[in-house]
Amino acid sequence: MAVKKLGKQTVQFQNTPIIIGTSTTVGPKEGEGPLSQYFDVILKDDYYGEDSWELAESKMLRETVKAAISKSNKNISDMEYMLSGDLLNQLMSASFAARDLGIPFFGLYGACSTMTESLSLGAMLIDGGYADNLVAVTSSHFSSAERQFRFPLELGSQRPPTAQWTVTGAGAAILSNYGHGPKITHVTTGKVIDLGITDANNMGAAMAPAAADTIVNHFQDTGLSPDYYDLIVTGDLGVIGKEITEEMVLDKGYNITKVYNDCGLLIFDNEAQDTHAGGSGCGCSASVFCGYIYQEMQNRRINKVLLISTGALLSVTSAQQGESIPGIAHAVAIVNDES
Amino acid sequence: MAVKKLGKQTVQFQNTPIIIGTSTTVGPKEGEGPLSQYFDVILKDDYYGEDSWELAESKMLRETVKAAISKSNKNISDMEYMLSGDLLNQLMSASFAARDLGIPFFGLYGACSTMTESLSLGAMLIDGGYADNLVAVTSSHFSSAERQFRFPLELGSQRPPTAQWTVTGAGAAILSNYGHGPKITHVTTGKVIDLGITDANNMGAAMAPAAADTIVNHFQDTGLSPDYYDLIVTGDLGVIGKEITEEMVLDKGYNITKVYNDCGLLIFDNEAQDTHAGGSGCGCSASVFCGYIYQEMQNRRINKVLLISTGALLSVTSAQQGESIPGIAHAVAIVNDES
Repeated sequence: MAVKKLGKQTVQFQNTPIIIGTSTTVGPKEGEGPLSQYFDVILKDDYYGEDSWELAESKMLRETVKAAISKSNKNISDMEYMLSGDLLNQLMSASFAARDLGIPFFGLYGACSTMTESLSLGAMLIDGGYADNLVAVTSSHFSSAERQFRFPLELGSQRPPTAQWTVTGAGAAILSNYGHGPKITHVTTGKVIDLGITDANNMGAAMAPAAADTIVNHFQDTGLSPDYYDLIVTGDLGVIGKEITEEMVLDKGYNITKVYNDCGLLIFDNEAQDTHAGGSGCGCSASVFCGYIYQEMQNRRINKVLLISTGALLSVTSAQQGESIPGIAHAVAIVNDES
Repeated sequence: MAVKKLGKQTVQFQNTPIIIGTSTTVGPKEGEGPLSQYFDVILKDDYYGEDSWELAESKMLRETVKAAISKSNKNISDMEYMLSGDLLNQLMSASFAARDLGIPFFGLYGACSTMTESLSLGAMLIDGGYADNLVAVTSSHFSSAERQFRFPLELGSQRPPTAQWTVTGAGAAILSNYGHGPKITHVTTGKVIDLGITDANNMGAAMAPAAADTIVNHFQDTGLSPDYYDLIVTGDLGVIGKEITEEMVLDKGYNITKVYNDCGLLIFDNEAQDTHAGGSGCGCSASVFCGYIYQEMQNRRINKVLLISTGALLSVTSAQQGESIPGIAHAVAIVNDES
């Protein structure tokens, strides 16, 4: 048996799926941020030559997949599965991209946790021998997300300081059973956790308990300690969620402070770019991982990463019905060989 | 290696995951239909004691999971993964149920194809050794779906004859690497296919090309012929989609007529129940498979089934933007031992 189950929520791979290549596309604002140099394509405008933001987002996802495949020296026809989702109702971005790409498709929804959901299932499909090559990809788009989840941009609504800024971006990773690149060694799958936050403008706080639970379970299941990793990085908790997570994890006896960061804090300069509590959206951890982190791993400036994309499972309907916001987070351990 | 890849889109399991138990809950209308005797719970009203249809749907999904676990002589804590989705935006039904159940959760979206998406990924996770037990479950609800996708019920809009009736129902299947029950032998994963249908009231026609493509690929990949199966059953193509699928599959040289049916035609008496082209929704193939088909397999009146749940990947936004309706279909082969 190729796989080793650890504890309640973790599997350790013996065939260690390899991330042989990645690609990223981001919007103009992300292209002006501190990670600018790490993105493959920076859009000049967020319509990307399309008639709607939703079609622009789908094109971004599709073109990012093509670029990742090409950078991995593969063809579209080599991809046996596309594991993908986005924030749009009924996964419009991923579904329409999958239509154009013609790759067998599993649609996923984990809100902003979708990048590690796709990497988790993708790693199992490679490790288990169900595929030699597949693509894991997600996207989000500021304008399509604001329109769907909050207010039409045309209203010019004021944003509270706890609000985060949905990243316009897509990140695609090619997973393979053969080749060079960082390897996925462990997956810790998250449970849905809800401590009663009802403010859709404070999603970091809603997601933090799920992130903390998954991180703690990862350490308990694997027996690893925080100092094993060079970088522990959540998806899009922002300023407030990061602080809560750090404290909740510390409460359980694990001090992650020295190596802990959040993709939502890395992607923007919150002061200069007026992004309030930080970046969010599926595309946040997708573009930061597939851009910055992957390149730094290739350069061996980072060698051991625990990536925990974090999702807030609210909908407009659940919010209107006064329900609180359930959170979820999946952790994926990615490690360079002989590091 | 436990798995055998066949052709482009199919895997054959060597450890053959077992469906050790199922359960179903349906609404009052489904309970008056021809499959009435096969459902575990028939609701008296579709609010199910909740304040909204969405919460009723989520309760239905949650209670069906509990019942399936209990009928399989397992505990909730035995379930290592819950693979689940529904039609509601951001999977409100599945996400809220997963919150209450506390099982590590992968959210899936394949529109009405979600039942076989969850069975496909679930079978891989069991076969690959990532879990000993897991639950695959989906739901749909007529009233929450009409409100979200079409018109508020209060308007009393007239339904065209091509329209289908979203099933109020949930079906849950417990997959295990040990025990008694029908086994999943093959999975054929579908591609997104779109032949340009734009009428949201004619989803059968939109999904038929995807169903036909997956069925034909299944036969080509496995070398099996239609007469290997006792029953080839699509998810919710209804009268019109079933006819198109039959013809498209015949065009490729496979005559499935003798053994082919559609869950959307089995669940209602379209004449007597005024359901026009037939049933639809994630809950359609979920409740028909987990109720009628599973019980008939246990009774050995049916021994070899190819289940192809079928999804129309439209959203209100994509429809309003004039986009056509992409379809997808995943096939799962389920076979009794020594049959």
